[in-house]
Formats: sequence, C-alpha cells, structure tokens
Amino acid sequence: VKVSELGEFGLIDLINRLVSRQNKENAGSHKSLLLGIGDDTAAWECQGKIQLATTDTLVQDVHFLPEYISWEELGYKAIAVNLSDIAAMGGTPQYALVSLCIPGNFNVESIEKLYRGMLNIGVKYDTVIAGGNITSADKLVINVTVHGYTNNKVLSRSSARPGDKIAVTGYTGLAKAGLMIAKHNLKIDAEAQALFNRAWNRPEPRIEFGRTLTECGVSTAIDISDGLIADLKHICRSSQVNARIELDSIPIHTLLKQYFPDDYISMTLAGGEDYELLFTVNDNIMKNVKTRLADNIFIIGNIETGNDGTVDIFDNKGDKVDIEDSGWDHFNSHIN
Amino acid sequence: VKVSELGEFGLIDLINRLVSRQNKENAGSHKSLLLGIGDDTAAWECQGKIQLATTDTLVQDVHFLPEYISWEELGYKAIAVNLSDIAAMGGTPQYALVSLCIPGNFNVESIEKLYRGMLNIGVKYDTVIAGGNITSADKLVINVTVHGYTNNKVLSRSSARPGDKIAVTGYTGLAKAGLMIAKHNLKIDAEAQALFNRAWNRPEPRIEFGRTLTECGVSTAIDISDGLIADLKHICRSSQVNARIELDSIPIHTLLKQYFPDDYISMTLAGGEDYELLFTVNDNIMKNVKTRLADNIFIIGNIETGNDGTVDIFDNKGDKVDIEDSGWDHFNSHIN
Repeated sequence: VKVSELGEFGLIDLINRLVSRQNKENAGSHKSLLLGIGDDTAAWECQGKIQLATTDTLVQDVHFLPEYISWEELGYKAIAVNLSDIAAMGGTPQYALVSLCIPGNFNVESIEKLYRGMLNIGVKYDTVIAGGNITSADKLVINVTVHGYTNNKVLSRSSARPGDKIAVTGYTGLAKAGLMIAKHNLKIDAEAQALFNRAWNRPEPRIEFGRTLTECGVSTAIDISDGLIADLKHICRSSQVNARIELDSIPIHTLLKQYFPDDYISMTLAGGEDYELLFTVNDNIMKNVKTRLADNIFIIGNIETGNDGTVDIFDNKGDKVDIEDSGWDHFNSHIN
Repeated sequence: VKVSELGEFGLIDLINRLVSRQNKENAGSHKSLLLGIGDDTAAWECQGKIQLATTDTLVQDVHFLPEYISWEELGYKAIAVNLSDIAAMGGTPQYALVSLCIPGNFNVESIEKLYRGMLNIGVKYDTVIAGGNITSADKLVINVTVHGYTNNKVLSRSSARPGDKIAVTGYTGLAKAGLMIAKHNLKIDAEAQALFNRAWNRPEPRIEFGRTLTECGVSTAIDISDGLIADLKHICRSSQVNARIELDSIPIHTLLKQYFPDDYISMTLAGGEDYELLFTVNDNIMKNVKTRLADNIFIIGNIETGNDGTVDIFDNKGDKVDIEDSGWDHFNSHIN
C-alpha cells in the first residue's frame, strides 16, 4: 500500500495506533504527558504548569510557490500556523525552533527576509526564536516547532458533548480566495486583493481569542487549517459525537460572495488555511463568550448525539445540503 | 551571495545576529530563556526546572541513502541524533515530535518500520513520541524535535577556560568508516562491518555520560556530530579560547587502523556523526569524572589562552601536525 492511497489521515491513524500501543506499555515513566498525537499540540505537565509544543512544515511547491508569496510573508506564515495551534489550546506562545532545508543556490538576502518575517510575528505575539537547524536540500522546507504554556485547562478536540453550540471566530474561505486569485491571475479591486492575500499569506493566529475561551470555561476547540467542515469532523471524531450545521448561520464575507458568486459556499466550508478557531460549548458558557468576544463569535450549529463523526449541513428550509467538503489532505492537495 | 558560498556556519552566524538583535529589543518578556541559538539545545526555565528543546533534520540523499540504511535504523538514528544533543546538555529526554515529508508513492510498510525504529530507541531512552506532522514532498525529510529537562546546571559550549583538560567519551571515526564501506562496497570481516555500520546507522546517545558529567560539576560539553576537531572549534569559538590536542592521546580503534591504514587519523579527527561527548573541565573535576566513568574517558589535550578559536594538534615529538579537519558542512558535504 502506498502512502497516497492511505491518505494523510489514514496514515496519522496508523502512526497513532503504533505509538499508543508503545506508550501504554511504557506508561509509568510518562505520567506528565497530558495530550499526545491527535490534538493541536502535545501537552505535558511541568511543576504545575502545562507545557505545549507543536510542529508544522511548509514545503515548496506543496504549501507555497515562491512566485505567490514574499519571503517575509512566508516567514510570517511559517510561525503563524504554529501559533495558531497554540491558540487552539488556549495557550501563550514562548519559543520557536526553526529548521530550514535550503537549496545551496538560494540567495542569502531571501533568507534574511524570511527571518525578518519570522521576527516580525515573534514581536507581535511575544515569541522568541530560540534555536533551530540548517541543512541543504533540493527545495526549501521550513519546519517550525513552537513551545508555549497555559495555566488553565487546555482546549482539546475530544471534549465536545451533545447539546453544545458550535461557533467560529471569523470568516472562512478568504485564504482560498487568495490562492484562487494568484493561481488564475484574476484582476480584482485592490481592497479585496489585499484582504484575500493577507488571509492567505499573512494569517493572524487567534491567541487572544483562545485564551479568552479557556477563561470562560470552554474546553473544546480546534484551529481551522484543513477547512471548516473537515476540522469540525476532527472534533466530532475525537469526541465521538455528530454535528448539525445551519448553512445560513455561517458567516460569509461580502467580498467573497461578490468575487466568487458560484463558489463562495464551498470555499467557506472547505477552503482551509483559515486559522480561525472553531469551538463548542454549552449554551450558558456560550452566552458568556458572546459577551466577552461579541461580534467575533458566530454560532453556526449544534453538537448532536451519534458517534460516527458525521457533520450534516441544513439550509433554511430544513433540507440537508450536499457539499463537497473534503478539505485539505497533504497527499491529495497541492498548491500548484 | 548564495547560501552555499556563505556555508552552514556563516549562515548560522548571520541568523544568530538577526535574532539576537531582536531578542535584545524584546528582552523583558523572555527572562526565562537561558540559552538560545548557538548551543546544542535551547534551554529555558520552568518553575525551577530547566526545559531543553532541540531539533534536527535528516534529508534523503543529503544525510542518508535508502540503500545504505534500513528504515528501522533510519528511525532509530533520527531520534538518536536529537537525544545526543540532550545528552550534550546533561539532560534527560522526555518527548519527541516527529515531522515527516513523504513522497506519495512511499510504502506504508516502510513508514511502519521507520516508526518501529523510533519507538525502539524511545523505549531504551525513555522518550515518548508525543506529536508531529505529516506532509508530502518529493523526497523523504525527517525532522525531529526532542524535549527534555535537567535539574542541574546545563552543559554549554561557552564555558571552557584556559587550563581545562579536554576529554572525549569514546572512539571517533567509526561512523565515517561505515559510510566508506557502504559507498565503496568494501568487503570486510563481519565483526568490523557490524561495528562500523552500527556506529554510522544506529548511534547511541550518551545520555548517562552527560548526566554524570553535570553531577561531577563539568559545565562545558558538545556532542560530536560535525567531527572531533570541528566540534572542538565550536567550543573554542563559543568560549573564546584556543586548544592544544596531543595526537597520540586520541583514542584510535584498532579495527579502524586495520581497515583504513592510510586514512584512520583524518577519519578519527574529522569523520563526524560520532555522537560521543567532547567536554572540558579543570584537572580536579576531571579526576572525579575519571573515577566515575573510568575507561570511557580519554583525555586528549588542553584549553589554552587565546581567543581566535584555533585548535592545534601536536605529535609525540612536539611538532605541529597539519590535518584537513574541515568536518561536516551541510552545504558542502553530501552523502552521495
């Protein structure tokens, strides 16, 4: 069997099984591990404080094409996608390790710009580059590990319960719009162009939102990297519940609708790389969250009983809508 | 300027300057950072305990060729090289994050073997795989981040002082012998073959030695990945001292001398991928270390005054020996 036949998530399941078996046999020595494979970050306990660690890789021609993104944006994004995982745990980021595989004929100036972007987001979210590794390769590969902590309970994927409301912290589909515009060289209004490009190439991790969610008592969240529905399915599978989404409750950006009148729904549901937070919590706490985060919170559906991780979407007539929602799979989605 | 012209260490210096400037401006918020770029691991303080984190990458055709190493050995080695960095700080490893870039046509069975190797070394050195990331790429890239801790003072590269003795925890050059034998398809005795291959493809991180060194009060160490002399130069430059090595004091494995009669000296001094520890300490503490670690310790020279990081090697007549000792540079050394 080839890796591409199994797919990204089949492979993660396989690895998870191999590792879990080992960890169980070995359990005594790792009581401090709170969360391993299968959540947004690993989490372990250190003298009463929870340490978080997450890693993510951007590969040239798979995740980015140098002609679509500036070096500075690429550096910014490479850190941002990891900070987003820390945000999805309700954590505060601290340190980053940066591993670069670089072709030997690469310009040193481009590397400086790449680091400039990483340092810029580091200042913004108080994250320091504390180490890393450099090696050569045929194509640029940027691997970043970010460490953070939380003094609260972590937000996990596995704690959604029937009756929970489902909410999202902002618009989705905008990053996909950025990709489409670059790929098809679409000419659009400058303001829209800037919005879509920023969403795609310079995403903002929702660190503050994540922290506020834990303070309010939310315990279930994920960051939207694969796509709104695909990531909701990750929550549902981990929590062994189903979900029901009301299509009309999902926030749609007016510029997305304007420039992509035929595709805006599938882009919103399955675009990916949105880096908003998706979370679930009971009605009472959701009211609290709404008070704290106001217009940044959109309630889009409910967690329901069931255990096969199904996500159903309904229109305003109560009819079930069938939508391609496969989302991003690293073995089947390439940028070019 | 191209990256290959600047070289690995020139590039690391550049990045270090960029990052240090930023960290200085931003110092207030990161008082917990003890060691950043430029040592074997990053180190920060967490409630009185020192957290260590290190990352290393193995790239197909740069660091390994699938025909020279089994998948299980490759998994073992990918974790081992990181554990060796933890050992060089005197730390205890705990958690690993594994990021794989995998070609889509890769066999799932090979991935299982790769993880088997990672899990085997994990059991041996009490290190649990706690997360990671999977994506596709044209070639296999394995990036591992290992987290550990120490309750003692860390071993750093920058604390060598004139008058210190220099010592190494075992033979070097054996991994290079493994590479030469595979590359030139040399037919040698099975025992020697096994020794060289194990050194190259299944290195043992010196976790226990590292811990013992900190317990004895040693404060300066590095693990030998680039080569004995190249790594000693890293210590000398970080510590702003020079070093003098007595060629006859360096341990030479009899099988290395037997099979490589013309090259064994340069292989010992500059082979690389040895993963022994190289450390320096004053005479009194060195005597203590000798008592604790006995035959595993070889004293090979002295730290001297000077600040240009020079390492001079002398033969038993007191003559200076000129030896090519460039060691491993990721932009100039390829396995194939």
